[in-house]
Formats: sequence, C-alpha cells, structure tokens
Amino acid sequence: MTSAVTHSEPIVSKVTPAFNILSFLSEKRHSRHHTQAGIHAFVQGVMEGSVTDYQASAWLMAVCCNGLSLDETAWLTEAYVDSGERLDVSALMGNGLGPVVDKHSTGGVGDKTTLVLLPVLAACGAQVVKLSGRGLGFTGGTIDKLEAIPGFHTALDNAALISQTAQLGLALSSQTPNLAPADGTLYALRDVTSTVDSIPLIAASVVSKKIASGAPTIVLDIKVGLGAFMKTLEEARQLAEWCRAVGQRLGRSIATVISSMEEPLGYAIGHTLEVMETIDTLKGQGPKDLVALTVELGAVTLFSAGVETSLDAAKARIQAVLNNGDAYALFERWVSAQGGDVEAIRNTNQLPQAKNQLPLLAATSGTIAGVDALLVAQAAKMLGAGRTKKEDVLDLSVGVIVHKKVGECITAGEPWATLYANTQGVEEAQQLLSQALSISVGEVTLPSLILETCLPDSITPNMIFKALDESH
Amino acid sequence: MTSAVTHSEPIVSKVTPAFNILSFLSEKRHSRHHTQAGIHAFVQGVMEGSVTDYQASAWLMAVCCNGLSLDETAWLTEAYVDSGERLDVSALMGNGLGPVVDKHSTGGVGDKTTLVLLPVLAACGAQVVKLSGRGLGFTGGTIDKLEAIPGFHTALDNAALISQTAQLGLALSSQTPNLAPADGTLYALRDVTSTVDSIPLIAASVVSKKIASGAPTIVLDIKVGLGAFMKTLEEARQLAEWCRAVGQRLGRSIATVISSMEEPLGYAIGHTLEVMETIDTLKGQGPKDLVALTVELGAVTLFSAGVETSLDAAKARIQAVLNNGDAYALFERWVSAQGGDVEAIRNTNQLPQAKNQLPLLAATSGTIAGVDALLVAQAAKMLGAGRTKKEDVLDLSVGVIVHKKVGECITAGEPWATLYANTQGVEEAQQLLSQALSISVGEVTLPSLILETCLPDSITPNMIFKALDESH
Repeated sequence: MTSAVTHSEPIVSKVTPAFNILSFLSEKRHSRHHTQAGIHAFVQGVMEGSVTDYQASAWLMAVCCNGLSLDETAWLTEAYVDSGERLDVSALMGNGLGPVVDKHSTGGVGDKTTLVLLPVLAACGAQVVKLSGRGLGFTGGTIDKLEAIPGFHTALDNAALISQTAQLGLALSSQTPNLAPADGTLYALRDVTSTVDSIPLIAASVVSKKIASGAPTIVLDIKVGLGAFMKTLEEARQLAEWCRAVGQRLGRSIATVISSMEEPLGYAIGHTLEVMETIDTLKGQGPKDLVALTVELGAVTLFSAGVETSLDAAKARIQAVLNNGDAYALFERWVSAQGGDVEAIRNTNQLPQAKNQLPLLAATSGTIAGVDALLVAQAAKMLGAGRTKKEDVLDLSVGVIVHKKVGECITAGEPWATLYANTQGVEEAQQLLSQALSISVGEVTLPSLILETCLPDSITPNMIFKALDESH
Repeated sequence: MTSAVTHSEPIVSKVTPAFNILSFLSEKRHSRHHTQAGIHAFVQGVMEGSVTDYQASAWLMAVCCNGLSLDETAWLTEAYVDSGERLDVSALMGNGLGPVVDKHSTGGVGDKTTLVLLPVLAACGAQVVKLSGRGLGFTGGTIDKLEAIPGFHTALDNAALISQTAQLGLALSSQTPNLAPADGTLYALRDVTSTVDSIPLIAASVVSKKIASGAPTIVLDIKVGLGAFMKTLEEARQLAEWCRAVGQRLGRSIATVISSMEEPLGYAIGHTLEVMETIDTLKGQGPKDLVALTVELGAVTLFSAGVETSLDAAKARIQAVLNNGDAYALFERWVSAQGGDVEAIRNTNQLPQAKNQLPLLAATSGTIAGVDALLVAQAAKMLGAGRTKKEDVLDLSVGVIVHKKVGECITAGEPWATLYANTQGVEEAQQLLSQALSISVGEVTLPSLILETCLPDSITPNMIFKALDESH
C-alpha cells in the first residue's frame, strides 16, 4: 500500500542508455511492444524537449491506431507519475482516523457526487484527500461548484491539505500543476491532434493523477452515455478494466463503477443549483439517482479500504449518515474550514441567484422517454455555466432544473424543466432544451443507473462476484 | 496527355471553405476516407503553416497505420504538384524530335542506368528531360556521378534545359527546390517520425515529382532486395501498382519495371568507376545485367511513348544504338553541351583517380552465391563515396569493383573485388566487404534481374501480357 516507497527508485534505472526515438516510433507503428525503459525514456524525452512535439504526436497517433498493452499502459502511467511531484499522504496513514481514500469521475452532467460523497466518506471513518479540477467543455468542475459558496477557497497548499484532513477527515484543493506534468504536456498535444479518446491514454492520464495524489484506495466513477466521454458500455468497460489493472500493477487498489449518463444526474445542473441539491442530499432528501450513486460509490470505497467487511454493511452505514445528519454536519464543518460562508449553506438564498426563472412546458402528454444530458449541458453552458476556453468567467448562478426523470408521467402544458437565467444565451438554451426532451405514449423501460461495479483486481474474482450478488 | 492543361484549374476549387484539421485527423485515425477537398486543404495548410508540424506528423503516422486509398493517394499527389512549379515541356511537344519521356529509379547500388539510358533513348528518337537528385544514404546520386566528369555542370535553368533537349534530345539538371515542395516539407517530417516507408506516401512523392517534371510518359525502375528501400517483391509490386494507377488517374502514362537489387548492378560502385562503366556500356561492352536493365527500361519507354510498336522492335533498336556507336556519340555531345571535358571521357585516366587499389581475395573455392549490395554500398560510403549528411563532401574517385557476379565460379585466393581507396575508411570497408561475399560449394540458382514489367494502366491488360509474353 505504501507505494510512495514502492516507486521511489531513481528514474534513471528505468531508462536505456541510448534511447532512439525513431526505433520507438517504428515499434508502435508496426504494432510491436515497447519496453518499460523505452516508455520511460520517451516520457523523459518529452519533458526535456529531446523528443519534439511532432514526434510525440506521431506516437500518440500510433497508439490510437495500434493500441497499448496493459504493461505498456502501466509503464506510461508510472512515467507520468515520475515526471512530477507526489502528494505525500504518509502523515495520515496510521493516525487512527481511517484509511486514506480518493474518488474520481470521468465527468458527467449534473454530477455533484464528489460534493456529497466526501462528507459521507469522512462521516463513515475514511480520510479523503481530493485534488480536483475546473470544468472544461460540457461537464462542470467540482472546484467551480464549491466556489458558488461565498468565501470558499480551493487553493490549499499540501501542508494545509494534509492538516485539514487530519482534523476533519476531508480536504479538497484545485490540482497543483506539478502532479504528473507529462500527462498535461501530452494532453495538450492530444487535444490538437484528434488523439484524445484512446482507452489506454485516458487510463494512464486518470490513474497517474490519482497515484500522484497519494491515496492507496481509489474509486473511479466511469460515466457512459450521451452526456459522457464514453459513449458505449463496451468502451466504459475497457476503460474500467484498464484502470483497475494498471492500479493493481502499480500497487493501488482501484475500484470502478460504471454509471449511466443518458439523462442528467439528479435534477440540478449549474453551480448554485448543484450546491443546493448537494445540501438536500446530505440532509437525506436527495434525488433517488444521486443517492443511489453516492451509496454505491461510497460502499465500494469503504469496502475496498477495509472500513466495512461487506458492501451491504457499507451501504447501510452510508444511508445512516445521510439520514441522521452526520454527513451534513461534516459538510458544514468542511465549508467553514475552507473559509466558506456557512450562513449561505443554511440559507441558500445567499448563494448567487439568477434573475429569471423560465419554465419549459411539455408539448404532449405521456411518459418521459429521455432527457438528453448533452443538450441540457450545452443549454446550461449557453446561459454562462460552462467554459469554452480556460479563461472564460463562469456565471455561477445560472443553470437548469429538470423536474421529471425518465419513466415519470407528464401532462401537456406541465413544466418539465426550469431555466435559471440572467441575460446571456436564453434563446439558444431554450432552443437546445426543446430538443432534449422525448415523450412516449407507449411503455418506457426504466434505465439502470449503476451498470457495472468492479472491486479492485487484487480482490479475487470469486470474492467480487459474491459481494455483488449479496448486494443486489 | 497535356496534363498541364488538365490540372490548371485554380487550387481553390479543390479546397472546402472550412477545413477542420481535427476532423481530418480523426477521419484517418478511424480508417475513414478523406475527400479530395480535404486532402488539398491539408496540404495547403501544411504549406501555409495553419496545419502545424505536430498535426502533420500525426496524420503521417495515421496514414502509415491505416493506409490511403488509390483515390486519396492520387489527390495527395495532385496536391503536392499544386504546391509548387511545373516544368513546362510544351515547347518540346510536336517539335518533330519525338515524344518527351522521363525515367526514375527508387535507388540501388551501382545503379548508373540513367547515365546509360538517357543517350540511348535520345538516340532512338525520344526526348528526355531529366531532373535528378544527389545521393543520400547508401545510394549514389546521378548528379554526383556526372560531376566526376571534370567541368560537367548540372545546374541548368528551365530555359537551358528545354533548349538543350530541343537540340540534343536530352538534358539533365539537379532538381529545383520548387517542384512539389509540399512533398519536401512532409518528407522532412517523415524522416524524423519513422513514417518514411509507406507505399502510398512513397508513390505520391515519386509520382508528384515526375508529374511536376512535365513528361507525359514516365518509366519507373523499382528496385527490390538487400540494396534497395523495398525489401520484398510484394512491397515493390504494391508500389509499382500504386504509381501506375496514380499516373493513370492524373493523365500520365507510367510504366514500371521491378528489378532485383540483391547484388550491385554491373561491376562498378563509386562515381568515377560508374562513369567508366557507363562509357563501356555505351560502347556495347557493358556488364550483362546493366545492359539487360537498360534494354528493358528503354524498350518499355519507347513502346509506352509510341516510338516503337512492339517491345521486341524497341529492344532491337536499343541493342543497335549500343552496338553501332550512336548512343556513345550522343553521350559525348551531351557531356560537351553541359560543359564536361570530353577528353576525360575518351581518356578516363583524367577522371578523379583513387591512390590505392586493394584486392579482396576469396577464402574458399566454389560458386558465388551472393554479394550483399547493402554491405558493398556501406563499404563504398566508408571510403568517402556516400553522404551521411547533406553537407558531406564526396570523394568521387573511390569505390569498389566487384569482379564476379552471382553464379560465377571462384578459386580460393582469387580476387573477387578491388577497393579503390584513398586514406579514408579502408579498414572499415574491408571489414564490411569481408561479410558481403557468400561462396557455395553446391549449385546456385541464378537470380532473375527483371522481376516484373508492367506497361501503363491505360494499356489494356491483354495487351500487356501479350507484349510481355512475346518479349520473354
């Protein structure tokens, strides 16, 4: 578990004396396997500049065309981690406050699970040290959402992050630029060379950040569907499998949950609106799907980390802290610890408010067959809730509340959603939302939210399937 | 045939208004087909700098992994041609001096065929306008070989090239930098990203240069074997097929000959030595293999261009001009027209001479089973006959004479080759050559020199195979 020790050998030992970038490129071009030394030398070359941008992007394209093996992906992940700093969480280990855990989502629409899950896990006896990002594209970022709380500051230094966790059981900070910087360098190239959506490259990116963040137990929420990067269950399954296996090879315990992202998660999309829904959920009054996902992710984490001995026990405990006020109390202490205005949490009128609320009415009667998460996210972005460029300033007050979930009945003329808007993008958002709703007069099959849960690969298959059978 | 007219429409018509490099890269990454407009816009973007080096190299790698269709290759070729100037040979057409033809070889060891073939073709009633390159790597360049003749100048401007051809029937110049410059730009990237050996990219490169050079009839000598870029007959066949088909789509008549490059062509390797062998051959005393290749390439050219009505008639005519002195006489006039010292041709002692001649002796008796062309070329390069970098200055006097061809008998102690050396690299060359010779005590199957000849694709298959049957 102490991978900070496992991986502390000097990088030079992994690098061949004479690295030849042309042979390396030719290897992948012809679908041959790289060596560990080759991959480390490549990443080191990228960071030092001896491997040029055009050589790196040729390699990225070869990987997209010809793939990477699990070993190669693990070596790439390791090389990403070695390229930068690691958060040292050793001070938290064995302090009697529970195992150190971490959670990551591949990004979805209305996904405020991190905000709910962190106090839940801390209330259940785990320590959560979370480095999080801002939103880009159509998914909202956890950091941005927390900034809807007046005064909440997200830039904790490492010492503050560790000491707050030791006190409260949780702390969250915007990611430092020094975690797995090679991933950032290559990601910038992937973004401009159509090489983003590669399972092994995504796995190395996700897992390297988590490994550099220090926690020995990690849970990944992999979203699949209209409002996610992964469009098919098959892709999501591959990514999940790759992440778990890479974690196992590098001494981390990674569990994966594949969850549906066809309709938005919960009812709220937009920063203030999502904070409000988080508060409801932590008070035991959350939307069914958000609660179910929180319980699933939380239970897998607690079980993987050894806090509970079965998934069922873990689920019961999480339900308890949601219902008895423990999780909410911890949320208030968290907000307060990071400078946020607790009054604004208690009286959410003090959070940034949009000037206008515009209802969207159903044109026909029937059963809700679909609410397209991507279109809802794009509508929210139009209103000012999303970024196109890193520099864009967000409007934290705007967004969308969806009133009906798939499978629910609706009558013509009834509002199915409400726009929370200021002046920006109202017409475009209405236009997009009008395409997002599908109403059926026939029967609608209720979709599954949790599609697949897999415990870390170090737990034997029999144990996994037994545990899952018991819990369903 | 007047493709200068066929392809003179403005490039803008081939370019989509909004070219998206990311979609373009994604297309090839996922093995989908590009459009003509897309390929033109890509090449234009590369030339203008709106497509970056790293994007271009990602595309090159995607092409190496996923291929290009024949249409795509033709469009790429067309876009390369459109990126620069064309040599205007229209003044030569219909001047009564015969059709305008061109020849290209993919490069081999001891390959002085161009030097022999140009005066042969001119003596047979074709006009040859040849733009040629310098050697790089292990193959010698025609321009370098001609510079072994004192005074021979190779930098003719376009007007001089055309007027000399109109007078003599042949002219040769070092390539101008403005022919298909996009190919040059992309080649520089291919060279540093392991994306050189791709059949469609090589075909586009070769054919675009030939199209920009103007001749409507082109013959390509595609070498295959140890001393060539193509290592297998299958690869060579694909390249030949691709080149003919691209030519056909772009209105050029391209014939291909695939010839073996396992042992060096002829006996001489090195600039002065090859000029001397050229002279012997033009006087009817050439090595059997060099004569056979000259006759094959020449006959295909004359037949494709309509100078002769059958391959047999063309072959007979070529043998005649080699034996009756016509080809040699034209060579002297050519050397003289380009400023070369004809005295040095008549008395080859006046060509650059190496100080030392070092014989290499056979260690055992038997039949020559192989003379490794690549090792012989590397040995000649060690002596100073080849370049590693563009700037390297060549020693035109050095090289190797191989005395025995595959299938000939040799006795232990008999010299099988002679090194023509100054001070540079003698030991290394001897070391390399000692590995180049294989002697067998058993029977040796005589290798074929001409492996496959295909007339231009515009001639129907029946005609091709009939013509080939008659000629063998």
